[in-house]
Amino acid sequence: MQTIRTTPSRLAKRTYYDEATIHPILDEALFCTISYAVDGQPFSIPTAFARRGNTIYIHGSVGSHFIREIQKGRPVCMSVMLVDGLVLAKSAFSHSVNYRSVILFATAETVTDDTERMEALALLTDQLIPGRWADLRPTTASEMRKTTVLAFTISEASAKVRTGGPNDEPEDLDLPTWAGVVPMRTVRLAPEPAASSLDTPLPNYLQ
Amino acid sequence: MQTIRTTPSRLAKRTYYDEATIHPILDEALFCTISYAVDGQPFSIPTAFARRGNTIYIHGSVGSHFIREIQKGRPVCMSVMLVDGLVLAKSAFSHSVNYRSVILFATAETVTDDTERMEALALLTDQLIPGRWADLRPTTASEMRKTTVLAFTISEASAKVRTGGPNDEPEDLDLPTWAGVVPMRTVRLAPEPAASSLDTPLPNYLQ
Repeated sequence: MQTIRTTPSRLAKRTYYDEATIHPILDEALFCTISYAVDGQPFSIPTAFARRGNTIYIHGSVGSHFIREIQKGRPVCMSVMLVDGLVLAKSAFSHSVNYRSVILFATAETVTDDTERMEALALLTDQLIPGRWADLRPTTASEMRKTTVLAFTISEASAKVRTGGPNDEPEDLDLPTWAGVVPMRTVRLAPEPAASSLDTPLPNYLQ
Repeated sequence: MQTIRTTPSRLAKRTYYDEATIHPILDEALFCTISYAVDGQPFSIPTAFARRGNTIYIHGSVGSHFIREIQKGRPVCMSVMLVDGLVLAKSAFSHSVNYRSVILFATAETVTDDTERMEALALLTDQLIPGRWADLRPTTASEMRKTTVLAFTISEASAKVRTGGPNDEPEDLDLPTWAGVVPMRTVRLAPEPAASSLDTPLPNYLQ
């Protein structure tokens, strides 16, 4: 939804407010940065998250200072950035970055329903490693007691997206400098077994 | 420097306050998230940055709302996260992430010295693409007038680092589930020339 807070001062043409743009960015990202403020001092914490419908879940230890602060209902800002490439122009000034980012304003709701809490932990696990949850022993009641699950509703969010090559000034186009894009990706390398799993076959979802 | 604000409530053993840990994380990262608050509402913006000595530089348009707000001297929190791997344990509860993160509290100083401004832009350019600045035409006075350079002093910062395999509970170790680490890396793919550079050889610093 477009609000004063989600409307950028610049480059409005790169800004989107529709779920069809925002949700896939959230679904591709593994981590977000969550910010909150106490007496005007901002604090930012990187954390894992997962989306289901219009809800974003995070989790943490019941003893976490960060979790306890945002549980108080303090306004939070969540930001996500996927970097797709570095954009090299003929001038330093026209250099840019291809990226897809989301910014979202919300307040945390503590999830208390045991079924929803467990489903959120499954989503959070499978967001990082799709297929993992079904391969794990059930989470115990003791583990659940040590875990806080928080939910944010996606109601005030925007995405910014830049794609394509450099936008050089016409007078720079004939300079002999190379211009173009250096694509960037986050990749997963071959899994490395723990000592406890040296003889365990790699599960299909990791191959 | 360790202060109340840089001392985490949990996992203090993963926290570092020394330059030898903090500086290399800042130097490897390409982007940070900068947060500030207005009337208790936090805002988070991903941006490029570069370090020289004990100073961090960012830049932006003189018209940027974000830049103008933090220029007022509002307290900011800068956070950086490098993800090294996903840590798969025998239980969902013991899953973790190998990462190196930095959190830093500061206020922005507007850089006014023209030499320092130009040096900061060179650092920012070469942080993304080492060697690029020397290959570019000089930045013009008009471009400099459109650009704000801000500096932060690194005086209140901490790093958190997790490395290694899963820390499973002893009673879980004999479960048949595969456990280990899925390493993650950010990689650069082959550069893609712009239409203006189809016949331009790729410079050495991009090979």
